[in-house]
Amino acid sequence: MHHFDNIPPVPLTLEGASMLHQMLRVRWPEWRALTATRREEILAQAAQALTNMEGQGSAAFSLLGHKGDLMLVHFRQNFDQLGEVQRTLRHLALWDFMEQTTSYLSVVELGLYESTAKVYGSLAERGVEPHTPEWDAEIEDNLKRQRQAMHPRLFPEMPPHPYICFYPMDRRRGEHQNWYQVPLAERQRMMGDHGAIGRRYAGAVKQIITGSIGFDDWEWGVDLFAEDPLVFKRLIYEMRFDEVSAIYAQFGAFYIGQRTPVAELGKLLRL
Amino acid sequence: MHHFDNIPPVPLTLEGASMLHQMLRVRWPEWRALTATRREEILAQAAQALTNMEGQGSAAFSLLGHKGDLMLVHFRQNFDQLGEVQRTLRHLALWDFMEQTTSYLSVVELGLYESTAKVYGSLAERGVEPHTPEWDAEIEDNLKRQRQAMHPRLFPEMPPHPYICFYPMDRRRGEHQNWYQVPLAERQRMMGDHGAIGRRYAGAVKQIITGSIGFDDWEWGVDLFAEDPLVFKRLIYEMRFDEVSAIYAQFGAFYIGQRTPVAELGKLLRL
Amino acid sequence: MHHFDNIPPVPLTLEGASMLHQMLRVRWPEWRALTATRREEILAQAAQALTNMEGQGSAAFSLLGHKGDLMLVHFRQNFDQLGEVQRTLRHLALWDFMEQTTSYLSVVELGLYESTAKVYGSLAERGVEPHTPEWDAEIEDNLKRQRQAMHPRLFPEMPPHPYICFYPMDRRRGEHQNWYQVPLAERQRMMGDHGAIGRRYAGAVKQIITGSIGFDDWEWGVDLFAEDPLVFKRLIYEMRFDEVSAIYAQFGAFYIGQRTPVAELGKLLRL
Amino acid sequence: MHHFDNIPPVPLTLEGASMLHQMLRVRWPEWRALTATRREEILAQAAQALTNMEGQGSAAFSLLGHKGDLMLVHFRQNFDQLGEVQRTLRHLALWDFMEQTTSYLSVVELGLYESTAKVYGSLAERGVEPHTPEWDAEIEDNLKRQRQAMHPRLFPEMPPHPYICFYPMDRRRGEHQNWYQVPLAERQRMMGDHGAIGRRYAGAVKQIITGSIGFDDWEWGVDLFAEDPLVFKRLIYEMRFDEVSAIYAQFGAFYIGQRTPVAELGKLLRL
Amino acid sequence: MHHFDNIPPVPLTLEGASMLHQMLRVRWPEWRALTATRREEILAQAAQALTNMEGQGSAAFSLLGHKGDLMLVHFRQNFDQLGEVQRTLRHLALWDFMEQTTSYLSVVELGLYESTAKVYGSLAERGVEPHTPEWDAEIEDNLKRQRQAMHPRLFPEMPPHPYICFYPMDRRRGEHQNWYQVPLAERQRMMGDHGAIGRRYAGAVKQIITGSIGFDDWEWGVDLFAEDPLVFKRLIYEMRFDEVSAIYAQFGAFYIGQRTPVAELGKLLRL
Repeated sequence: MHHFDNIPPVPLTLEGASMLHQMLRVRWPEWRALTATRREEILAQAAQALTNMEGQGSAAFSLLGHKGDLMLVHFRQNFDQLGEVQRTLRHLALWDFMEQTTSYLSVVELGLYESTAKVYGSLAERGVEPHTPEWDAEIEDNLKRQRQAMHPRLFPEMPPHPYICFYPMDRRRGEHQNWYQVPLAERQRMMGDHGAIGRRYAGAVKQIITGSIGFDDWEWGVDLFAEDPLVFKRLIYEMRFDEVSAIYAQFGAFYIGQRTPVAELGKLLRL
Repeated sequence: MHHFDNIPPVPLTLEGASMLHQMLRVRWPEWRALTATRREEILAQAAQALTNMEGQGSAAFSLLGHKGDLMLVHFRQNFDQLGEVQRTLRHLALWDFMEQTTSYLSVVELGLYESTAKVYGSLAERGVEPHTPEWDAEIEDNLKRQRQAMHPRLFPEMPPHPYICFYPMDRRRGEHQNWYQVPLAERQRMMGDHGAIGRRYAGAVKQIITGSIGFDDWEWGVDLFAEDPLVFKRLIYEMRFDEVSAIYAQFGAFYIGQRTPVAELGKLLRL
Repeated sequence: MHHFDNIPPVPLTLEGASMLHQMLRVRWPEWRALTATRREEILAQAAQALTNMEGQGSAAFSLLGHKGDLMLVHFRQNFDQLGEVQRTLRHLALWDFMEQTTSYLSVVELGLYESTAKVYGSLAERGVEPHTPEWDAEIEDNLKRQRQAMHPRLFPEMPPHPYICFYPMDRRRGEHQNWYQVPLAERQRMMGDHGAIGRRYAGAVKQIITGSIGFDDWEWGVDLFAEDPLVFKRLIYEMRFDEVSAIYAQFGAFYIGQRTPVAELGKLLRL
Repeated sequence: MHHFDNIPPVPLTLEGASMLHQMLRVRWPEWRALTATRREEILAQAAQALTNMEGQGSAAFSLLGHKGDLMLVHFRQNFDQLGEVQRTLRHLALWDFMEQTTSYLSVVELGLYESTAKVYGSLAERGVEPHTPEWDAEIEDNLKRQRQAMHPRLFPEMPPHPYICFYPMDRRRGEHQNWYQVPLAERQRMMGDHGAIGRRYAGAVKQIITGSIGFDDWEWGVDLFAEDPLVFKRLIYEMRFDEVSAIYAQFGAFYIGQRTPVAELGKLLRL
Repeated sequence: MHHFDNIPPVPLTLEGASMLHQMLRVRWPEWRALTATRREEILAQAAQALTNMEGQGSAAFSLLGHKGDLMLVHFRQNFDQLGEVQRTLRHLALWDFMEQTTSYLSVVELGLYESTAKVYGSLAERGVEPHTPEWDAEIEDNLKRQRQAMHPRLFPEMPPHPYICFYPMDRRRGEHQNWYQVPLAERQRMMGDHGAIGRRYAGAVKQIITGSIGFDDWEWGVDLFAEDPLVFKRLIYEMRFDEVSAIYAQFGAFYIGQRTPVAELGKLLRL
């Protein structure tokens, strides 16, 4: 039996759907300055395009607070398709009345901390050196099997819940507390404890984690979906005390939205 | 008698009214460019809607300084109703002359540090394991009783005082000083000392604490109401020296407003 | 003789005039687009209101740099009167051509570190417990006497010097260096050393300290007035090395203005 | 054999092409307000200028997210030529419909950590003192040879890959962890380990490092080019665990773009 | 011989010319919307005023990147004259087409670390107490002599080099590393090492240091002038490793400009 000092610190990770959040503020004065007829024309054009998008993995949420009036959330197969989403939206007349206050670009991600320990352990036991062809092949094979098994989680449907909570986050890289210097086994244990809290809320909250390292300004995006928005607070407050969050989580802005089917967008935009 | 290492670190917490603060800046040039007649029409329409809102838990405050001309504060039963508030405001002609510079979304919160110690202690003594059905039932039962007893504090009336001070805050999560790693008993003690200062000001300041973890960019919002705004400074300065504030409090922007009954909004907006 | 562990950490503090700084940027293109006649009308209206304000504790300064063209500084009896100042300004036609880039709200403050030590010491010697009625009465009595003695410093005239330097500041609350955890006697000593530097500049610089805890985003505002603006730099540079500033001072933006009597505002605004 | 304590800490460094990134947001309402004929005229003028630029080391990328609609990336011989690029763009009618949200100015840089160790070692062995004429001549001679050998890497062609990832970064200068105080040999070792990860991705990712100390607000800019944008995430995530990144890397905003040949810019801008 | 514990920590410092940097962005759409004739009229008026300013210590630089199109740099005798510069510029019709994105206000400064050690040492040896009339007189006498000797450095001509690099900086005041707590002799030694690097670049880079404590948001401004802008990078990179910079320097934004004589401003602004 061999032991490697150079076992990779990166957990095995699966990527799925590409995801774009767009936070939009309506330019109310310009919108209101139109005639009612023109507004209806513009809404009709937008409704058609957005209904089409709803069928392809998009949804609209009306936001609470000043960060925007509307948040569009898009799941797609890849970045090319997200580019297509952007082009479609820009070509709508409605787009002139929308200011994109912010956005978030990421891909659905599953961090396989438990599998990682097993696979790396098994490879090490058999004396397979990291990054050799044999190692790479076995890792790729393992990822492929998991990718198939977890396809529904990697390419999720838009959850049907009426409320969404979105926020980006980082793992801390402080001068004294640095996630990226914690041994893999420690990280695995902390992520396990963290997951256990999530599972107690599984009936009330649907959670989708996306990775954005290299894509956007934070490392991960978190989307929570629920019937009762108070559950977001309870879940996140409870998690704030677990080790991985208390020490290593850093949070960006929080966005709270209420699902607005395209058929009801007029309720928001009609005057 | 049993002792658990896994007694939850989260204090029992009650949630009440949903709350939205909206900071608004008047677009003076556009507003002044209207005819006096048109301004009166717009004010009349707004007065009707805002008077109605005043009856449902809203109030207007004129702000001191550049952060806005007006702050609207809304207490409601839930987020759905806050969404309704937003829709009503957007449909006012006045809204075209208002820029929402910022906002804050939260829910009235009571952190039951003292009860928590008793209840968790009693459950532990009787050997009830955390998160078992028995534990959950007893906790939920306790919360239900407290929720009833504290209903007036959870769903407060808008205090009648002429001055408001609003600010958001976080508990520090530093690399060396981290609120979320302090044992529950320590936190209970510090919150007790903190509360003792507040009680000495009880006659002069009405305080409402709201929780915003998962809802907005800080963890809590604090609203203080008083006759004499100097009391805000004395209270907050004194608290800054208590342990929980000195070490663990981090503050956002401060907003100072003067209550402006809707009937007098014209005083602000008439030229 | 008694010794109390619970001697309050807050120094005795007097509050005086309420103060508002308003930094204004002229909307030059819109202003220049007016006819000369209209500009003169607007200036005449503004001159009347501002001359009136000058008589009540206001002054105008033209700023150096991009942070604004003009800074209005207002001393008043209370926040109500500052609210009145804001209403008067908003009703001027000139206001449409001014963008308020920032502002600062505070009250003149005297921190009585030396008296505090004496009074607390004397009360402790006589065995009077903090926050008992006897304690409160004696403290209030002491404050009342000092408030009368220091009335001119608490409600200052606008200093006549041609240059102003304004900046907000905080006392540090770091994880290792935290002003609010330093014993009162230590703070008293450091503030004494700090004051000694100021006294060496007393002939050249008039200093007014205002407190803004609970009112604005920093804890204190500092206004310096001088004939020669180089003295601001020498004073602040020298102070930066004293213990209380070196370790505990954190500074916001600096604003440098030149006094512009209302009678000469036309020099700035006429084209 | 001599040993110097004053061996310079700066690694030998080669500079190549000057590089400018320009992030642009289309002013859609103003653009859409034009007649289709006028838009075509403007596009025709722009297409000619941009096609010309493509031949000189420029490329256009359509961005994902709100940070901009378009990113122009320019390689040139020197800053004079980048100034010329700016003048050409400003003179296009299209420029009125573009808002430059941000930019990045840097020069292609190769840090020769391995050569540095050898050259400094050899000079020290022969007793040549740093910064003497002999030292300077030998260093300059070495740099000249390397500059010739590495000319293609110093003045790269625009990589042909469809996806780009750009981000700026700093080396940490914390109070406890400070890259600029780490001995040269330690830095060389860490950069070697870092490079080894990069080499495993060489087939999938083309990387261009530019230096911006003295030119822009971060110390380095990183451009990655790939067929599959998921590779950006995998590479950067894996690197985040290596010592030099985990401890010493600090990252700015991330920009993800899709190559858009000038011939297809109309696809983005035509309505 | 006496030794004082209270030798002042502030180095002797000379102040010279007052300096204002103004970063300007052209409002291209509004500018382009004018007729060519009107643009020429406006340019003619501006050329006259700016040519006049060039004769009084001002220069224009076209900027690279999005931070602005133009940077005006003004040396004057005092702040009154800088105020006059601002008034002159605001009265140009061209000013309506310029947005001042930022600015920097400072005075040329020479920190006399070496003289300080000698003078303080000599005074201490002779038993002269700090801040006594004798001390003050001798210090003032010394400063007066140095002020005369260094007049050309205190009131510099605008260097003729084609490239400028400007950035503001602070000395660190961290919780563990704090420049303002380092003994004077230590600071003198570090500044000496720092200066030695600068001297090796003296032929290639002209450096002007200005102090801005009390005037602007950073403590110092640095202007570098060179033929070849790559030298900025080499100098600043090399300095980043010296002790005073590695540990104590904190940098603001960097601005790179190319000298544009007023006679050639039309090249930038003509369409």
